[in-house]
Amino acid sequence: MRRTLRELDEYKVLIDQSLLEYMDNLGDGKLAKAMAYSVEQGGKRIRPVMALVAGEMFGGSVEETMPLAMAIEMIHTYSLIHDDLPAMDNDDLRRGKPTNHKVFGEAMAILAGDALLNEAHTLLIRSAVRCGVRGAEAALTVSLAAGSVGMVEGQVRDLENEGRIASYDELKGCHELKTGMLIAASLEAPAVLFGASDDERKAMRELGLKLGLAFQIKDDILDRTSTKEVLGKTPGKDETSGKTTYVSLFGLEKSEEMAKGLTDECLGILKGLDRDTAQLWEMCLALLQRNH
Amino acid sequence: MRRTLRELDEYKVLIDQSLLEYMDNLGDGKLAKAMAYSVEQGGKRIRPVMALVAGEMFGGSVEETMPLAMAIEMIHTYSLIHDDLPAMDNDDLRRGKPTNHKVFGEAMAILAGDALLNEAHTLLIRSAVRCGVRGAEAALTVSLAAGSVGMVEGQVRDLENEGRIASYDELKGCHELKTGMLIAASLEAPAVLFGASDDERKAMRELGLKLGLAFQIKDDILDRTSTKEVLGKTPGKDETSGKTTYVSLFGLEKSEEMAKGLTDECLGILKGLDRDTAQLWEMCLALLQRNH
Repeated sequence: MRRTLRELDEYKVLIDQSLLEYMDNLGDGKLAKAMAYSVEQGGKRIRPVMALVAGEMFGGSVEETMPLAMAIEMIHTYSLIHDDLPAMDNDDLRRGKPTNHKVFGEAMAILAGDALLNEAHTLLIRSAVRCGVRGAEAALTVSLAAGSVGMVEGQVRDLENEGRIASYDELKGCHELKTGMLIAASLEAPAVLFGASDDERKAMRELGLKLGLAFQIKDDILDRTSTKEVLGKTPGKDETSGKTTYVSLFGLEKSEEMAKGLTDECLGILKGLDRDTAQLWEMCLALLQRNH
Repeated sequence: MRRTLRELDEYKVLIDQSLLEYMDNLGDGKLAKAMAYSVEQGGKRIRPVMALVAGEMFGGSVEETMPLAMAIEMIHTYSLIHDDLPAMDNDDLRRGKPTNHKVFGEAMAILAGDALLNEAHTLLIRSAVRCGVRGAEAALTVSLAAGSVGMVEGQVRDLENEGRIASYDELKGCHELKTGMLIAASLEAPAVLFGASDDERKAMRELGLKLGLAFQIKDDILDRTSTKEVLGKTPGKDETSGKTTYVSLFGLEKSEEMAKGLTDECLGILKGLDRDTAQLWEMCLALLQRNH
C-alpha cells in the first residue's frame, strides 16, 4: 500500500493538536496548568515528528504512533523544565517565554516535571496494554533512553562539564546521552512497535545518535551566532558559563563541517534502508539548515 | 498448595537485598551513588512488603512480585528526595541521615529523583515485556497512582495547604492522593498481576486507601508525640510550619480513635476475602501500633 506523504509541518500540527487535547483532559487544576504551560509552549517537536515519520515508514499509522510520540515529547519537556531550574541551568527564558519556575514557582516546576515524566510513562505503559509485547518493547526503548543510562546521566555530565574544559570524548559522550539517545529512541521505538527487523532497528538507532550529535553541534553554533529573537532563548550562555562546546573546542567553521559530515552519514544510513525514507531525508537536511 | 508464611521482617530483608543488588548494577558513577544513597537508606519498606505479601496471597512468588515491589519503593524514594528539597519542604534530615540534597547538592538530588522515577517505570515496563498484558495492567496501576491523578497531585495539595487551615475533606483528599494511592497500588498491582477477580482487585484497592489514611493519621500523631531519635527526622515540623494535620484538627485522642477505626475497617475488608490474609492482618495491626 502506497502511503500519502505528508509535509513535515502537517505532523507538527497533528502533534500539537493531540498534546493540547491530552493536556485539556488533565483538567484545569494548578498542576495540570503548570504541565500544560510547558507542553503547549510548542517548539519544533522534532522528536515526535521523527517518531510519526518513522512509524509510517514501518507501516504504522499516525494514530497508532501518536501515544509514543506524545510520551517522547513529554519526556523532552519535563527535562527542559528541570534543566531550567535555578539549581540547574537557571534559565529565565525558554522558547521566548518565561520558564516554568518563573511562572509557577520552583516547587510547582519540580512537580510539573515529575508529573510529565510520570505521564509519559503512563502513556508508554498504555501502549503495552494495547499493543502487547511489541508495545512493551517500544516503551522500554524510550524508558531506557530517558533514564539513568540515558538522558538523566547526560544532564549529570553536562553539569559536571560546566566551568571546566571537557575533552572531545567527554563532550561527545555527554551529548549522546543527553540528546542523542532520546532522538534515537524516537526513531527506534516506532520501528520496534511495527515489527522492523533487528538490522533496521539498529540502523534507526545509529541514525538517531548521529542526528542527535549533528543537532547538538548545530545548537552550539546557533548559541554563538543567533539572536534572542530568532532563538527564543538567551544566546551566548555557553560562553559566559564557561561550558565546553563544539564551537569552543573546534571553532565555528570546523563545527559546521562536523555537522555536515554527520548529516551525510545520516543520509548514508537512510540510503541503506529498503523503505520509503524521503521524509526522514528531508528532516535530516532541515535540521542541519535550521536557524533556530 | 499451602505456602509457608514468612515473618514480615523476612520480606524486608529480601527487599533490601534486591534493591542493593539492583543499585549496585547501576555502577558507581555520581548519579548512581546519589540514587543508591536514598534507596539504601532503608526505612520500613511498607509498600514493597505489602506488595510481596499481596503477591503471595494471590498465588505469585516473591521473585515474580519483586520487580513491582522495587519499582514502588523507588517511586516512594524519589518522592521523598524531591519533597525534601529546599523549594519544597526543605528538610535536612530523613531517616536519621542528611537528606539527599544535603549530601549531593540540589541539582544532583533533582536528577537522582528523576532517575529513580524513570528507573521505576523501566522496571514496570520490563514486567510488561515479561508478563504480557497482566504485567502491563499491573504497571499501569502503579503508574497512575504515582502521577498527576495520584501522588504528585497529592504533593501539590500538601504544599497548598501549608500556612492555612485546611478542611477535613481537603486534608483527607490530599492524603488519599499523596499516600493512599501508592499504598493502594502496592496491594492492587500484585492482585492484577496474578489474575485476581475484579472484586478482589477492588477490595485490595479500598484496603490500601484506608490503610494509607490510617498510616497518615499515625504519622501526624507521631510528629506530635515522638522524638528525633525514635523518628529519625525532626518532629514537630507540622506544628511549626502551620500545616493542618489530623492532630491539629481533631486533637491526639480523637486522631488515635480515627486511626483505630480505619484499621478495624481494614480488618473487615480482609475478613471478606477468601484468601490467606494472615500476614496482611498482621501488617495492619503493626502499622497502627508502630512508634516510628
